Amino acid sequence: MTAAELETFLHDHIPLSRAMAVRVASVAGNRVALEAPLAPNINHHQTVFGGSAASVATLAAWSLLHVRLVSSGVPSRLVIQRSTMDYLLPMAGDFTAIASFEDAPAWDAFMRMLTRRGRGRIKLGAVLECAGQRAGVFEGEFVAFAE
Amino acid sequence: MTAAELETFLHDHIPLSRAMAVRVASVAGNRVALEAPLAPNINHHQTVFGGSAASVATLAAWSLLHVRLVSSGVPSRLVIQRSTMDYLLPMAGDFTAIASFEDAPAWDAFMRMLTRRGRGRIKLGAVLECAGQRAGVFEGEFVAFAE
Repeated sequence: MTAAELETFLHDHIPLSRAMAVRVASVAGNRVALEAPLAPNINHHQTVFGGSAASVATLAAWSLLHVRLVSSGVPSRLVIQRSTMDYLLPMAGDFTAIASFEDAPAWDAFMRMLTRRGRGRIKLGAVLECAGQRAGVFEGEFVAFAE
Repeated sequence: MTAAELETFLHDHIPLSRAMAVRVASVAGNRVALEAPLAPNINHHQTVFGGSAASVATLAAWSLLHVRLVSSGVPSRLVIQRSTMDYLLPMAGDFTAIASFEDAPAWDAFMRMLTRRGRGRIKLGAVLECAGQRAGVFEGEFVAFAE
């Protein structure tokens, strides 16, 4: 899946991604980076609204798992079950959410559960960056159901 | 602050609240209820996007603290520092986020710190409901800075 394909998927199926003007900066098997501008995501302090930050981070993590599931050829429905967001710094400009994946054993266990039992559970984080600084940390727990 | 005043504030200062079509259903000193329709918040499963759910819950909790701070007459800047969201059920229709506050000692300690030291910290939760069912639980940690 290319960055353009993922961006079209998000904009077509999750209208809030379009309202937040989310752009897919890059997609690879181990990393998805999403960008969003300040203007549609601003709050009354002229910084990024916490809900926008959490939403773009959620989309980054969800997208990386989605891309990997599509590549694996196992049709499944992927939903978020729990998330934690730590807001480290206010973001006063355009921002990026980067989900990256390095835990091969966790992925293997997840796929094994998904194919054997029809349901797999996995954790994936994302980092928010603004003006070259780490501004937030997201951690999500996702469940995939085989279809 | 009336429901109409809070709704105008949110729509004017946090454009995402307008994009999510958030409506202030009710405001009281101990409870804020926000409503949002499915359409602008939908995902590819035809249920509410997790980021929208977390965003509306964040706005409900933030709004209740904001309303209480305005009533208290202590000018301050209120920001979210950490949040947790548990997604219990998919929401396949319009949904509500209800923040309610019953912890008087916590509020008193928060206001004491805010007025004495210029900074107070407080936790506040919100519950998401859809079709009469509890569909999600949000917990936020907020910090207020005296201005």
